[in-house]
Amino acid sequence: MSRVPESRVIKLAVIPGDGIGPEVIAEAEKVLEVATADSSIRFDKTRFSLGAARFLETGDTLTDDDLTSIGAHDAILLGAVGGVPGDGRLKNANIERGLLLRLRFALDHYVNLRPSKLYPGVPGPLAQPGDIDFVVVREGTEGPYVGNGGSIRTGTAHEVANETSVNTAYGIERVVRYAFDLAERRNKKLTLVHKTNVLVHAGGMWQRIVNTVAAEHPDVVVDYLHVDAATIFLVTNPGRFDVIVTDNLFGDILTDLAGAVTGGIGLAASGNINPDGAFPSMFEPVHGSAPDIAGQQKADPTAAILSTALLLDHLGLADEAQRVTRAVEEDIAARDGGSRATAQIGDAISARLQA
Amino acid sequence: MSRVPESRVIKLAVIPGDGIGPEVIAEAEKVLEVATADSSIRFDKTRFSLGAARFLETGDTLTDDDLTSIGAHDAILLGAVGGVPGDGRLKNANIERGLLLRLRFALDHYVNLRPSKLYPGVPGPLAQPGDIDFVVVREGTEGPYVGNGGSIRTGTAHEVANETSVNTAYGIERVVRYAFDLAERRNKKLTLVHKTNVLVHAGGMWQRIVNTVAAEHPDVVVDYLHVDAATIFLVTNPGRFDVIVTDNLFGDILTDLAGAVTGGIGLAASGNINPDGAFPSMFEPVHGSAPDIAGQQKADPTAAILSTALLLDHLGLADEAQRVTRAVEEDIAARDGGSRATAQIGDAISARLQA
Ligand SMILES: CC(C)[C@H](C(=O)O)[C@@H](O)C(=O)O
Ligand SMILES: CC(C)[C@H](C(=O)O)[C@@H](O)C(=O)O
Repeated sequence: MSRVPESRVIKLAVIPGDGIGPEVIAEAEKVLEVATADSSIRFDKTRFSLGAARFLETGDTLTDDDLTSIGAHDAILLGAVGGVPGDGRLKNANIERGLLLRLRFALDHYVNLRPSKLYPGVPGPLAQPGDIDFVVVREGTEGPYVGNGGSIRTGTAHEVANETSVNTAYGIERVVRYAFDLAERRNKKLTLVHKTNVLVHAGGMWQRIVNTVAAEHPDVVVDYLHVDAATIFLVTNPGRFDVIVTDNLFGDILTDLAGAVTGGIGLAASGNINPDGAFPSMFEPVHGSAPDIAGQQKADPTAAILSTALLLDHLGLADEAQRVTRAVEEDIAARDGGSRATAQIGDAISARLQA
Repeated sequence: MSRVPESRVIKLAVIPGDGIGPEVIAEAEKVLEVATADSSIRFDKTRFSLGAARFLETGDTLTDDDLTSIGAHDAILLGAVGGVPGDGRLKNANIERGLLLRLRFALDHYVNLRPSKLYPGVPGPLAQPGDIDFVVVREGTEGPYVGNGGSIRTGTAHEVANETSVNTAYGIERVVRYAFDLAERRNKKLTLVHKTNVLVHAGGMWQRIVNTVAAEHPDVVVDYLHVDAATIFLVTNPGRFDVIVTDNLFGDILTDLAGAVTGGIGLAASGNINPDGAFPSMFEPVHGSAPDIAGQQKADPTAAILSTALLLDHLGLADEAQRVTRAVEEDIAARDGGSRATAQIGDAISARLQA
């Protein structure tokens, strides 16, 4: 776990990004300031203009200089990146791989932390959701995301395209240990999700490492689900989960589904964490840039604000983190279905923080 | 599409399998007989004892002889295979890969057809499910399922395990064509699901081939969803889907989720289809062998019975297929929440067929 520097000054890289990113990040910054106003903590912020807009202007996605400069910060707050779907000028850009995934890989964000909680008062799609409160610990630097793919005879009738999922004991063990530690601090239940009956080599290694680490945590109840079965439980009995540990791709899929069953990814926060503190961790809402509603103050900044709670917690500011979470919970509980502007929601949560 | 042989005798390979497999297959066979009683169709059946039980007895999963013999049939009806979870004697067996996947690959079942329909009267997990009626066309012979994986330094701290997804233009084009033909016969809407922003080579090829085939079907509305986003829509707006075409692994995940949102995989039927008719197609419920309730007449045979409707349809017996589906729909509509034995459900559906 990283800690606040002695100076009490936190160097924060802010990447508002595209679409609704700048709007929700403005509210997240507001809340961050209010949450730490009474403390000796100060933020020294650098703004990075990255994303589709920057690419269209300069042709750059993420330069080595950007990366070095971002890497020199204590933490990163990111809004959302991605241009308008179907924009031909972005056809070959792949902002996701070149920016978001490059940051996760270069900064060794091996824990992609995605809590899912159904807050009282939030309408969701399930008829009987029950109590939902679990965390997905998604591996962030391996699996099918490594970019070890290629194709031959591309564009012909004889094309062959391969994608290789790369998995290492080193990479799995560290994220599994993180997940067990988290389970110890929560309800002491851990579920491994994979597809061991098909991906026998990668899945077999995950299972073996989970078994080994489980032996050091006799008080944590461990079970296993195939990814297909896990999606069933997420809609029929999401209350059964406490900590889920899973690979990069399965975690991507499960957390969008989890966001949906807990009332929409407008509320889902995430941390891309390097627990060793060797690199700055990055906090972002799970949602995308939603260019269709950008600039209209229609976006819900709650996921971005909850991401700052994860950021504060990661920096060891547990009290401040809890105060943000509580203010958000109160705000959600008081919602009456009326629509509020993005800034109004940020203001309301800030006001509760100050109260 | 395969057709009934001139002789009107259909050589049917029956693989009841493990757990609840034999019970649900008994009802499926019952319904198959009743549905064709008035026609000149006869079934010439061969029973294959395959699965965990057979493995424990003989050490064999699927011999070359089994495969040759099964391959000489017109169609295959399969219950479910798989032993009791945690049975140490099956530790290294992998019945799924050695039996189920081996059949799908050897018999070139490149279309894994999985309809999802919310039948009136069926309770599901969604508060407002709306009209759900779509079909997933899951590729069945490529992708991460090919078994092209391996590991080095297995079991050590330096283990590396790779899994390679193999995708060919040949393999994708044929299943995409099937999906477009199906969309033409349905509501003329096709959704490609993949993860093109991460799996750029495989995903790029899927997208290009869908674009190419789409040009031949100007009346089919085509869209694209990342697999993570697709899971969101499956719980928030499943009514938006008509035909989904997707890769082997994404199809596995989406169809379990689809089964859950339409009231449980106790109702989900599937066909492993070789549309060219070069090999027999195989029909099976999506559910597993559920050893915990085996032999107790507790299993719902509806998914197995609906699988026979897919079988009849595949053989060109569209009327018989429709009569089975209608009988099932009537049976479902008449359910009052009381529990019935497996055979009672089969009898009730058979009675409706005869009426
Ligand atoms: C944008 C995309 C590359 C990313 C991912 O797949 O990880 C997103 O879906 C997420 O979950 O953060
Ligand atoms: C048993 C398993 C190998 C299989 C699959 O993954 O295809 C099953 O989940 C299915 O969907 O038929």
